[in-house]
Amino acid sequence: MTSQELTQKIFQKQSFLCVGLDTDPDLLPRKYSGTKRDILRFNREIIESTKDYAVAYKFNTAFYEAMGPVGFEILGETLEYIPKGIFTIADAKRSDIGNTAQKYARAFFEVMNFDAVTLSPYMGRDSVEPFLSYRDKWAIILALTSNPGSLDFQYIEGRDGVPLWLSVARECSKWGNPDNIMLVVGANRVREMKTLRENLPDYFFLVPGVGHQGGDLGQIFSSACHTKGPNILVNASRSIIYSRSDSDLGESAEGRAKLLQGEMAKEMKVFLDKP
Amino acid sequence: MTSQELTQKIFQKQSFLCVGLDTDPDLLPRKYSGTKRDILRFNREIIESTKDYAVAYKFNTAFYEAMGPVGFEILGETLEYIPKGIFTIADAKRSDIGNTAQKYARAFFEVMNFDAVTLSPYMGRDSVEPFLSYRDKWAIILALTSNPGSLDFQYIEGRDGVPLWLSVARECSKWGNPDNIMLVVGANRVREMKTLRENLPDYFFLVPGVGHQGGDLGQIFSSACHTKGPNILVNASRSIIYSRSDSDLGESAEGRAKLLQGEMAKEMKVFLDKP
Repeated sequence: MTSQELTQKIFQKQSFLCVGLDTDPDLLPRKYSGTKRDILRFNREIIESTKDYAVAYKFNTAFYEAMGPVGFEILGETLEYIPKGIFTIADAKRSDIGNTAQKYARAFFEVMNFDAVTLSPYMGRDSVEPFLSYRDKWAIILALTSNPGSLDFQYIEGRDGVPLWLSVARECSKWGNPDNIMLVVGANRVREMKTLRENLPDYFFLVPGVGHQGGDLGQIFSSACHTKGPNILVNASRSIIYSRSDSDLGESAEGRAKLLQGEMAKEMKVFLDKP
Repeated sequence: MTSQELTQKIFQKQSFLCVGLDTDPDLLPRKYSGTKRDILRFNREIIESTKDYAVAYKFNTAFYEAMGPVGFEILGETLEYIPKGIFTIADAKRSDIGNTAQKYARAFFEVMNFDAVTLSPYMGRDSVEPFLSYRDKWAIILALTSNPGSLDFQYIEGRDGVPLWLSVARECSKWGNPDNIMLVVGANRVREMKTLRENLPDYFFLVPGVGHQGGDLGQIFSSACHTKGPNILVNASRSIIYSRSDSDLGESAEGRAKLLQGEMAKEMKVFLDKP
C-alpha cells in the first residue's frame, strides 16, 4: 500500500484509527477459552465489529509469542480475516544486522503477509534496509516512545543540542521515503510530535498510547497533522478489544471504535475548510 | 545460572566459546532437507559435536521465525538437546514497554526455557526490567554492535562527550547486577571493549562477530578479559555450523570448535600465572 492509498482510505472512512489486536488469553471475556480456536474467534469478532471504523490493525507479536508456537499460527491465520485495503502492522520492534534482518523481513513479509513491521533503530541503517527492498511494504521505526524508559536514552542531546529521538527520525527518514518509512511517536509526546512534524512533513506517524496509556486525540491531531491530510495512524488496543471487560455496562468493541472514529471525523473537518 | 557458575564452566572447559545455532534451511549440507525433522537432526548433530568445547549456545530467533510457526517448535525442541550446565541464549533483540516486555520474558523464560535473552536498549529501563525478575535468568543488552549501522547512532556523543554506547552500558548495568545483566559488544570494537571493561569490570560481555565477521580472538581477549577470569562469551556461528559447506576439504564443526577452544585455552594460560 502506498502513502497515497492509505491517505485515501483515511479520507474515505473519516478515520485514522489503528486497532491493536494485542490478544491476551488471560484477559479474554469468559465466553472465550484460551484455545487456538477461541483466540481466532475472538480476533475475528473484533475485526468484524471494528473493520468499518479502522484503517489499520496492529499486532504486538509479544502477545502471540507468549502463546508458544501456536501463537504464530494464530497471527498468520488472523491476518486472513482482515479485509483487503486495511493496512496491517506487525508490531515486532525487531533489530538485527543486515543478513539477519533479511530473515525477519522474510518472516513478516513473505511467510506472513504484513504490510509493515515496527523496528528499533539502535543498530542503524543495515538493520532497516532489508525491509525497504520489498515493494509496497513499510518499515515503521521507533523515534520517540511513550513509556517511562523513553527518558533513559531517547532524550540524550548530542553536542549539537539535538536530542536522540530527533536525530533518529531525521536520519531514518533518509534511508527510504514517505512510501516505505513511517515513524513511531508516543501519544503523550505531543510537543515533540509537533517538532517531528515540522522536520518531516510528509512522513506518516504511528501513534500508540491512546486509551489506557492516556494520549489525547485532539492534541495529537493538532500536533501531528499535516496540512494536506492527517498522515497519522492512532492506535488503540486495550481500550477497544477489552472494552467489555472493564465493566458490565462497558461499551462493545464496535461502540468504542465507532466513538473514536467519530472523534477523528470531527478533527478531520479542518480539511473541508481548505481550498 | 549465576556468573560464578558460568565462570567455573569456563575454567573447567578452558573455553569461553558460544556456538551460534543460526540454522538456515537454505545453507544446510545436502544430506539434510528443509523439513522440521532434518533441521532438528542438523541442530542435534552440531550440538553433539561441539558440546565439549562450548560453554553456551546462542539461537538467533530471526532464522527460526523465517521458517514459519514450525520454527518456534524447532527452537523449543532443540533446547532439549543441550546438556544441562551449558548456557542458552535467545538472540532475539527484543524491546517493548513494560507490560509487553513481560510477555516476551514469558515466551523465552517460561514457554521456552532459555537462560538469557538479548534486548535492544532504545526503549529504556522498563523494557528490560521484566526479564530481571526471573531468578537465574539474564538480560543481555546491546551496547555496541559490530555492523556498519552501529556508526549511525551508537557513536553519537552527548554534551558530556560520552558516546551513546558507553552511556547505554553504564546505565543498563545499574538496572541489575553482574548475575543478571550482560552486554553485547561487537568483536571488531576492541578499543571500545577495553573502555567498557574499565568501566564495568564485573559484567560479562557477549562478543559476536568472530569468524565470518572477522574479529580477532587475541585482541578480544586482551581487551575484554577481566583480571580474575575471562568474563566474556565469544560467539562463532557460520564459521562453525557451516564449516563443511565452505569447501570439500573444510573442517567439521567439531574440528572448528575444538580449534577455537584450543586458542581460547592458550589465551587463558595468563590466569595460571596469577597468584
